Amino acid sequence: MSDKVSRKEKFLSVFPELVSELTEVLNGYGMTKEAVEWFTNNLNYNTPGGKLNRGISVIDTYVILKGYKSVDDLAVEEYKKLAILGWSIELLQAYFLVADDMMDQSITRRGQPCWYKVPNVGEIAINDSFMLEAAIYILLKKYFKQETYYVDLLELFHEVTFQTELGQLLDLITAPEDHVDLSKFSLAKHSFIVIFKTAYYSFYLPVALAMFAAGINDEKDLKQAHDVLIPLGEYFQIQDDYLDCFGKPEDIGKIGTDIQDNKCSWVVNTALKLVTPEQRALLDENYGIKDSEKEAKVKALFNDLGIDKIYHEYEEKIATELKEKIANTDESRGFKGEVLTVFLQKIYKRSK
Amino acid sequence: MSDKVSRKEKFLSVFPELVSELTEVLNGYGMTKEAVEWFTNNLNYNTPGGKLNRGISVIDTYVILKGYKSVDDLAVEEYKKLAILGWSIELLQAYFLVADDMMDQSITRRGQPCWYKVPNVGEIAINDSFMLEAAIYILLKKYFKQETYYVDLLELFHEVTFQTELGQLLDLITAPEDHVDLSKFSLAKHSFIVIFKTAYYSFYLPVALAMFAAGINDEKDLKQAHDVLIPLGEYFQIQDDYLDCFGKPEDIGKIGTDIQDNKCSWVVNTALKLVTPEQRALLDENYGIKDSEKEAKVKALFNDLGIDKIYHEYEEKIATELKEKIANTDESRGFKGEVLTVFLQKIYKRSK
Ligand SMILES: [Mg+2]
Ligand SMILES: [Mg+2]
Ligand SMILES: [Mg+2]
Ligand SMILES: [Mg+2]
Ligand SMILES: [Mg+2]
Ligand SMILES: [Mg+2]
Repeated sequence: MSDKVSRKEKFLSVFPELVSELTEVLNGYGMTKEAVEWFTNNLNYNTPGGKLNRGISVIDTYVILKGYKSVDDLAVEEYKKLAILGWSIELLQAYFLVADDMMDQSITRRGQPCWYKVPNVGEIAINDSFMLEAAIYILLKKYFKQETYYVDLLELFHEVTFQTELGQLLDLITAPEDHVDLSKFSLAKHSFIVIFKTAYYSFYLPVALAMFAAGINDEKDLKQAHDVLIPLGEYFQIQDDYLDCFGKPEDIGKIGTDIQDNKCSWVVNTALKLVTPEQRALLDENYGIKDSEKEAKVKALFNDLGIDKIYHEYEEKIATELKEKIANTDESRGFKGEVLTVFLQKIYKRSK
Repeated sequence: MSDKVSRKEKFLSVFPELVSELTEVLNGYGMTKEAVEWFTNNLNYNTPGGKLNRGISVIDTYVILKGYKSVDDLAVEEYKKLAILGWSIELLQAYFLVADDMMDQSITRRGQPCWYKVPNVGEIAINDSFMLEAAIYILLKKYFKQETYYVDLLELFHEVTFQTELGQLLDLITAPEDHVDLSKFSLAKHSFIVIFKTAYYSFYLPVALAMFAAGINDEKDLKQAHDVLIPLGEYFQIQDDYLDCFGKPEDIGKIGTDIQDNKCSWVVNTALKLVTPEQRALLDENYGIKDSEKEAKVKALFNDLGIDKIYHEYEEKIATELKEKIANTDESRGFKGEVLTVFLQKIYKRSK
């Protein structure tokens, strides 16, 4: 069993305990058996099925900050508390994804039907998404109320939740799937969308949570983390957009659909900056339409424009900048640049 | 201008300030003009259009607890803070109603199209509902972070939000509009649904918020408020259910639709307890169907069963019980029974 697999299994093993603690709250209220089962299904169907990188990275970051050799050095209760912070991010993501799938009218998620597509669920999924979010605050209250950093955790979740919703809003009004208007796109909007919709909760949140738990909570240290993790999260999404178009299906494990889906992707935004009026007309005519011939024309244009090369230049530049920033980390208050290096290494030159 | 109208106008006059403070947060993030406008419209369309009883009752309760003669005795900044607590309830309600209308596939709300029915909004309304909730925590942080009861406010909102979602869940799985199954109904479930879905946020929340702001936060006092306001909220909803069926349209300002809408109402639940097998068959055949002849048959049965009389007996009994409880209020720590009397008086023998 690789180290990564065992860390994931250890993290997963906490989840059933959380489900029973959460459903105990419902039983305490005298809720009906049917409703308790519904909530249990909601939690189990929507929370643990992903890669869990965000949740696990809370624990990994904490281990580094505390100077432990491995996650096995954590006491049982200490591990559980960190895992709860990790699962709180996964609950936050579940809250967003259940709703995002409804707004995007998606069909499947993580190899199974989207929750709202499950028989008898339908629009109830909206309230179910609310309950996934509410579960975060039940867990935080139960496990962290006595901690001096309890309010910091609550405010951090509130703030990152709102930031993610803002990113989602801008994404929804900039790139509706059913109405193509490339004049709404720009690299600046792309940057805002990916930072707000993805980078805050996926990159900054896990590290900030681990920092609070480790007692490293100076504003200057949170800013050091922020100033690397937010551009890193943007880089991650630009890479994701790049791979959707230029990655090999056998590497990325799926066939990219961003062109047909009218996604406000880094690739099309970069192209829009470079096109001649004729090329722009070609884009307007062929982007965002569920038609593989039109998609092929767009891809050919992206190749003509040399997007591939521009991406690799961007990747080298951002990786160099981030390495430099990390090398200059001020560790005098206990924060460690290694935390950031681990994140960067997971992403740099990833092909899947 | 009646006192009630002027109190409402004063409360309403705070809202535009809150909208600009909230949109300032978006401007601070560098959000696009289009998105700021969207959020502004979301706030204005969905928050202030109702009766605002919940929000205003926070202020009224505070005035009583502090021994002021009228709301005009509050200093400007003091009034604004109380109004923000009131508006936070209205934002919470807006969050629930935007989503509830989608789940119920309603067409209108407060005399205008439901938000998701507004052109170009559609499913984006889900994310908009999220942002209405998030606005609560932005305002609480801005205005109450320095207060000793800040965490109490956060926890109270978290808890009441979850309770309301639980009530909504039980309602949704008990009485879907498109599938009638009266065997799922019971007075016990009705009681749970109305207490969780309505009573906590409409009755307990405003008083508890005012109590924290007034420094009356002993668990025993919160329990005194709870133990009157929760049954009072249940009474309010039972009355609402009663009036939907037995109220005069000219009094209640609308034509009741609970029978056709398959509502898990107090009226049908009371009937289900009393029916003979033949009457039950009539109910099974005619309840919850969009057909006015079937509705008339159900109404005739409700009359035969004497639901009207049972309601009036219930009303006298609960009002007597609540008056007695209020009379026994322990005011030694500063809580005041008058707060509860005001709530009871608004409801007792209401015909609209
Ligand atoms: Mg999606
Ligand atoms: Mg989406
Ligand atoms: Mg992608
Ligand atoms: Mg409704
Ligand atoms: Mg409803
Ligand atoms: Mg009603």
